[in-house]
Amino acid sequence: MSKNTYFSFAMGIGTQSGSGEWLEVYFPDPLITPNPNLIECVKQSLNMNNGNQTVSPTLPQLDQLANALTNIGMADQAALAKQLRDSKQPLAITLIETDTAPQTVPEIYLKLQLLSHRLVQPHQVDLTGIFGKLPNVAWTSAGAIAIDELPQRQLEARLRGELLEVMAVDKFPKMANYVIPTGVRIADSDRVRLGAYLGEGTTVMHEGFINFNAGTYGSSMVEGRISAGVMVGNGSDLGGGCSTMGTLSGGNSVIISVGEECLIGANAGIGIPLGDRCTVEAGLYITAGSKVALLDEHNQLVEIVKARDLAGKSDLLLRRNSENGRVECKTNKSAIVLNQELHANN
Amino acid sequence: MSKNTYFSFAMGIGTQSGSGEWLEVYFPDPLITPNPNLIECVKQSLNMNNGNQTVSPTLPQLDQLANALTNIGMADQAALAKQLRDSKQPLAITLIETDTAPQTVPEIYLKLQLLSHRLVQPHQVDLTGIFGKLPNVAWTSAGAIAIDELPQRQLEARLRGELLEVMAVDKFPKMANYVIPTGVRIADSDRVRLGAYLGEGTTVMHEGFINFNAGTYGSSMVEGRISAGVMVGNGSDLGGGCSTMGTLSGGNSVIISVGEECLIGANAGIGIPLGDRCTVEAGLYITAGSKVALLDEHNQLVEIVKARDLAGKSDLLLRRNSENGRVECKTNKSAIVLNQELHANN
Amino acid sequence: MSKNTYFSFAMGIGTQSGSGEWLEVYFPDPLITPNPNLIECVKQSLNMNNGNQTVSPTLPQLDQLANALTNIGMADQAALAKQLRDSKQPLAITLIETDTAPQTVPEIYLKLQLLSHRLVQPHQVDLTGIFGKLPNVAWTSAGAIAIDELPQRQLEARLRGELLEVMAVDKFPKMANYVIPTGVRIADSDRVRLGAYLGEGTTVMHEGFINFNAGTYGSSMVEGRISAGVMVGNGSDLGGGCSTMGTLSGGNSVIISVGEECLIGANAGIGIPLGDRCTVEAGLYITAGSKVALLDEHNQLVEIVKARDLAGKSDLLLRRNSENGRVECKTNKSAIVLNQELHANN
Repeated sequence: MSKNTYFSFAMGIGTQSGSGEWLEVYFPDPLITPNPNLIECVKQSLNMNNGNQTVSPTLPQLDQLANALTNIGMADQAALAKQLRDSKQPLAITLIETDTAPQTVPEIYLKLQLLSHRLVQPHQVDLTGIFGKLPNVAWTSAGAIAIDELPQRQLEARLRGELLEVMAVDKFPKMANYVIPTGVRIADSDRVRLGAYLGEGTTVMHEGFINFNAGTYGSSMVEGRISAGVMVGNGSDLGGGCSTMGTLSGGNSVIISVGEECLIGANAGIGIPLGDRCTVEAGLYITAGSKVALLDEHNQLVEIVKARDLAGKSDLLLRRNSENGRVECKTNKSAIVLNQELHANN
Repeated sequence: MSKNTYFSFAMGIGTQSGSGEWLEVYFPDPLITPNPNLIECVKQSLNMNNGNQTVSPTLPQLDQLANALTNIGMADQAALAKQLRDSKQPLAITLIETDTAPQTVPEIYLKLQLLSHRLVQPHQVDLTGIFGKLPNVAWTSAGAIAIDELPQRQLEARLRGELLEVMAVDKFPKMANYVIPTGVRIADSDRVRLGAYLGEGTTVMHEGFINFNAGTYGSSMVEGRISAGVMVGNGSDLGGGCSTMGTLSGGNSVIISVGEECLIGANAGIGIPLGDRCTVEAGLYITAGSKVALLDEHNQLVEIVKARDLAGKSDLLLRRNSENGRVECKTNKSAIVLNQELHANN
Repeated sequence: MSKNTYFSFAMGIGTQSGSGEWLEVYFPDPLITPNPNLIECVKQSLNMNNGNQTVSPTLPQLDQLANALTNIGMADQAALAKQLRDSKQPLAITLIETDTAPQTVPEIYLKLQLLSHRLVQPHQVDLTGIFGKLPNVAWTSAGAIAIDELPQRQLEARLRGELLEVMAVDKFPKMANYVIPTGVRIADSDRVRLGAYLGEGTTVMHEGFINFNAGTYGSSMVEGRISAGVMVGNGSDLGGGCSTMGTLSGGNSVIISVGEECLIGANAGIGIPLGDRCTVEAGLYITAGSKVALLDEHNQLVEIVKARDLAGKSDLLLRRNSENGRVECKTNKSAIVLNQELHANN
């Protein structure tokens, strides 16, 4: 592999358990497809080999790296290397040469931060097997703590008359303690996991939620739940409490997505991908197996179809007829066009 | 304007960005329609003019104000002025002469706190244009931080081995860090924005939510979402995950409200205002355009109506017939009375 | 009562209001049915009588207790007694001789912690009247604070340039600040109350919620709400935003439960107990009064029944027919078997 194709590089500060296992790593300024000169500097300064790897530099190594970075004109990274000198916590310098299934906690944390820094998009980075490799961590007001060390830490804090606030016990931390991308609002940071991708102009309200490897391409009002793997197009809004079926749980193997300029109503839900300019009525849950009465531009019944046959189609209005309970799909298209579209692949 | 008609006065402690912009102001004891003598004291002590304005007093001015307040018998305000002497943070003394569209961050924060202190009710104070004037702020364990200063602050905390917990990035803070009105419980303070109005006896459970300029007039169990602008009457309960359509999002221009002694079931939702003693069955979302079968006291069909025609009416039971999917509205009234009520304005 | 039948014993650190009322007590290592020798040690060392009681030991008493515990071979409890010597906060040593309605805050907190430590299961401990005896407390970054002392504490923190973060104002704290049982993940600790019972292998996602005296017997993915009193069987999953009706609110006197290997879909809800291997379709709310079309193994209608008649039955698939809005229950049983089961108790 040529020297100019490294996938990512980052310098960070992490937390280790009492037995020296990485619990998490914070990379303030990660790089995607870094400058080959930088890679050379790093490998020389830190005696790093090829491949995906993480080292904890000595102070002289860190100084050498800072100088080398200055010499090649990378002032921001050089400044970061200098600041890291003062860290009271363990340092991690991670090189990912190839985007393969990550093998270590620093690699995984780097990839999750690449997503949240918008340096890669969901589904564009290999996250294979991360659940098995991430430790379950107590996320506290004193930072990350290994689960088996938590009770003693809680007792010690109490003896001092202090509270060790435990915000979560999970394999993933909240995104906001690692990065806030530009142009977003997050009303309750507990609801956005590290590895979420929030497009510029996205607001995640209190009832909104975004899992890792999921998010919004552009401007969206998110008051519903974006499950792992789900992406939402620019200009689409998710109403309060609405649901998008994830691929982690449930028997669904189709990746759900939402196109542009869609509106999913409050307390609604989708088990199929939506195209552009679709609306799902508040309170209606469309599963892939729902039978849907397809109506043409004149509100005439064209055909009863499975919802999964409507996957990815645009300009749909999905609602439940309140007079007879039938789930209906209205479009602005004629019966002939609808028939052609639906049976094009038969 | 006569001297006795000032709208509000408050002394507070705020946070400013590195460039001196107000991020937020905490007013511990705001006053509505303050005593004209107090206004005179304040204007003289602080050299303030007429109009809506905020000043940051010098220490001598603060002392003079404390003395003047003592002289007119306002002991609580005098004590507060004395305490503020010791503040490490910038002080803000805000006079709102007239309740017009607020122009500054301190004015907006004062109005939001008047609401949460129950000194004014939602819709009784001019909040025009506040979204445009409120800065987006990082709400952290170290207080409010300007968004563009956050990354460096996060890095510095990490270098010290500490966590700078970022709870939210939003234009509105949580209410609980400003005021807890008497007689309420809030199971998760992330879910109640500053500017919410919680009546005495209100419990907001973990799944409950109350936006600004919205809330409960009296005793309520809130396990659902009260959108901006929505008010709920005394004795009404909102079931878990239920939704009230807001006026900020969606095409709805009618302000939703809930009368007294109503019950909105879990995961239900309303797109119309309700009168008193109404029940919406768990899981049913009533939008303004839903067609509803109106049943009389004998469960006989009177008429199919749009839900919006039922707006504000009392003693309704809204449910979906589980045998035929029809949305029905039962009342305790006869068909004749129902017809008269519905067509009174035709 | 014989000396070997004591219900529980625990040593803890608590918080008191300025007027000396207990606000909460943290018991790091509570015991159920403690060794009778331990009870003897405790009663002698601390001059305690029979009955349910709490004492705040003097330091000499604590030393004597630590020695006595060492002598009877209870090293962990002895070590805890020694650590408590250094506490800056008030100590509480609580003996519950009989499991009767708790009368004091330490007793209630001990019982809630027995539940969350998995030492007793929900419905196996007497919690009668606890709402009336628990104080409403401000849960803050500085620990528990009495409600009427909160405003002054908030002001003082602000004057120092600090934030006193108020996480909740409630009678119940979050579980995670007291105990994390083994083998669980909790994505947002605000959503699990002290007194919840989380089986090994349970994950509570961001939208999940577990009230006190409720929880999971074994492995479960909880993305919905487990109301007070509700228990969920091993292998059952609760989809995002789904609801289980509680007994605290609503007119429902039947205790809801979920058997093993069930799936409640996203945004669904149940007002009846479920047996094993039941599925409730996403978005469907089954209330006890819902009329349900019971279908046999051949999808033929057997009978229209009230949902409450299906309470506790296994192998049900509950869904709303999307063509006609009818709520249906499919099983893998024949019409004859279904009829026999339904009318067995007529």
